[in-house]
Amino acid sequence: MATADVPPHPHSGDPVFDLHVGGKMQVVSTTALTGPAELSLAYTPGVALVCEAIAADPTMTQHYTWVPNVVAVVTDGTAVLGLGDIGPSAAMPVMEGKAVLFKQFGGVDAVPICLDTTDTEEIIETVVRLAPSFGGINLEDISAPRCFEIEDRLKERLDIPVFHDDQHGTAVVALAALKNALRLTGREAATTRVVISGAGAAGVAVAKILLEAGIEDLAVTDRKGVLHSSRGDLTPVKRALAELTADRTGRTGSLADVLDGADVYIGVSGGTVPEEDVARMAPESIVFGLANPHPEVHPDVARRHARVVATGRSDFPNQINNVLAFPGIFRGAFDVHATAITEGMKLAAAEAIADLVGDDLSEDLVIPSPFDPRVGPAVAAAVSAAARRDGVARR
Amino acid sequence: MATADVPPHPHSGDPVFDLHVGGKMQVVSTTALTGPAELSLAYTPGVALVCEAIAADPTMTQHYTWVPNVVAVVTDGTAVLGLGDIGPSAAMPVMEGKAVLFKQFGGVDAVPICLDTTDTEEIIETVVRLAPSFGGINLEDISAPRCFEIEDRLKERLDIPVFHDDQHGTAVVALAALKNALRLTGREAATTRVVISGAGAAGVAVAKILLEAGIEDLAVTDRKGVLHSSRGDLTPVKRALAELTADRTGRTGSLADVLDGADVYIGVSGGTVPEEDVARMAPESIVFGLANPHPEVHPDVARRHARVVATGRSDFPNQINNVLAFPGIFRGAFDVHATAITEGMKLAAAEAIADLVGDDLSEDLVIPSPFDPRVGPAVAAAVSAAARRDGVARR
Repeated sequence: MATADVPPHPHSGDPVFDLHVGGKMQVVSTTALTGPAELSLAYTPGVALVCEAIAADPTMTQHYTWVPNVVAVVTDGTAVLGLGDIGPSAAMPVMEGKAVLFKQFGGVDAVPICLDTTDTEEIIETVVRLAPSFGGINLEDISAPRCFEIEDRLKERLDIPVFHDDQHGTAVVALAALKNALRLTGREAATTRVVISGAGAAGVAVAKILLEAGIEDLAVTDRKGVLHSSRGDLTPVKRALAELTADRTGRTGSLADVLDGADVYIGVSGGTVPEEDVARMAPESIVFGLANPHPEVHPDVARRHARVVATGRSDFPNQINNVLAFPGIFRGAFDVHATAITEGMKLAAAEAIADLVGDDLSEDLVIPSPFDPRVGPAVAAAVSAAARRDGVARR
Repeated sequence: MATADVPPHPHSGDPVFDLHVGGKMQVVSTTALTGPAELSLAYTPGVALVCEAIAADPTMTQHYTWVPNVVAVVTDGTAVLGLGDIGPSAAMPVMEGKAVLFKQFGGVDAVPICLDTTDTEEIIETVVRLAPSFGGINLEDISAPRCFEIEDRLKERLDIPVFHDDQHGTAVVALAALKNALRLTGREAATTRVVISGAGAAGVAVAKILLEAGIEDLAVTDRKGVLHSSRGDLTPVKRALAELTADRTGRTGSLADVLDGADVYIGVSGGTVPEEDVARMAPESIVFGLANPHPEVHPDVARRHARVVATGRSDFPNQINNVLAFPGIFRGAFDVHATAITEGMKLAAAEAIADLVGDDLSEDLVIPSPFDPRVGPAVAAAVSAAARRDGVARR
């Protein structure tokens, strides 16, 4: 029997809506039940043998269920794209899109879970209760600062990978692009001056991975300027970040102040940066304006002053797109039945993405295309190897 | 990229385990992302239009997401097959099997949700929070009496179909078979004496649907005999059932007592009924021993005395198999975007299943084969029509 027939739809003729009729995904069986013999193997009475085997040894789940290849894409709909808090039902098209990307680029089965609660404790409890059904949890479009606590506490309570893509996917791909931009411009991480605008989910994660990757002079700004412990208005997350960044260098002031002479600007803020501020950066500067669809600096403007320019957009060179990271990261974690996604696995993913550029490195190619078929397998292999090094691989 | 390669598995060579390697289902995309143009329609930036449309009008979910065709198959693993409380992970192979059946026989996408809690309140809260992700909830293998409260309260709180298949699927198919058995033996519902052994999920639901279908003389037994209000040991569910059944006729005593002269026996108990008790039933009696894999009376034994014999087994005639009901019931409910599954929809499903037997009616054919391709569409059409009559259809 076919799926439900769909009547003429309200936005008929619009290519986006036409594509979305009936949704973007479905579940299919990998076994055909053509008669009683098949039914007695795949369902009763045969299936009871498999249930008993798992009851006796839970690791049998890894062999005889779909669980080890399935990630739950979990959202509460509070920070969806640039749309903000639109609720769980309106978030579904994005989560389905994410599921399609997981499958296409990582061979990972993904199930969208849009939760009808925005309460931190309720989200945590709900995901913990769902966990036996999934091999991993991808948190998505949950607003800061709740996203930090939710991810941290789920990582403590679960022995499967938990990954907030808005943080770590963005961070991994930004780091990959930055590695190649530094190579192109002959810079060393330890002596490069970096400014990040935006201290939400992505800004915090980008800052942390850059520190792990050897960046030492880093300032992060929010709407009120550089995060520094001398400010009295910092949240706990921002205070901790200040201690790891501008407190060490003593830099304070506005975004314009710290951009003056900086080597690298990474925008994850959705704000705007005036051309004159970009002009006052160091020679051969690196400018990543990642807000979508409107980068903090238009790439054509940035290119008048910067040597390397990247955005989140597909219609300009150097697209910083999370799809370069998350499918391969989960593929690599699942392939070794990893119990977690470690910092080492994220750094390995960034390295693998950056390495694919190789000798093609240029101002317009510091990061591979999202459609480069080498990316998913390369990231997966690097992540699996890192999981083994970090002791989180179960096979 | 293919899914994870599976190494040689622990039970290699066993046909049941061989079939289960990697699980029995996967997620697939219905849209191919072959390049930036497709990506910009199915994901950012295009998808934002769809999110905004749903945020403005939640009914757009029905057009532009997979939600209206997806049922969550929810269990806590406490009453799995005949295995009992084996936990959520060990229940997964059954839930995957259920999902395969939903798709094959109803075109319904089903996602197994195995919950790591057995607390009634926690299960209810969790399912309510998940609800925006699904078009319906199929409760499965949750032990009595919690299953009754969980279903009742979820039906109150949600405006999507909620259906406990162990109760209602069994009840619908048993009623369908009974309708034809009564026709074959020339009985009227109102004057037929029925005995049900087993007052768990299935027993309660079978009793209720038989009452709705016009059976007036009905006794339900548990291990201590007939449910009757004079007993001091009844749970609230059993007391309510007693009031609807044996309290009306005054029948009391043991299962053997009430089988004496009864027209119909329906076993959903897992116990056993001695041959001499079957022998003392009315002439041309009807015996459904539905326990699996060991019917309460072996069908060869029952046939020495009864005119019509049915079991849950595929290797004897007249298999009472839930798969005749649940795929078509959800298909029919989904096709009209029903807000609930009403008693009228269940009765219509039973009627549709029974009607398919038509002129082929015989002792060995009171119920169609689970593989009869007419069943799913016929049940779906009858259920959709009943949903409209009952005022729960949204289109």
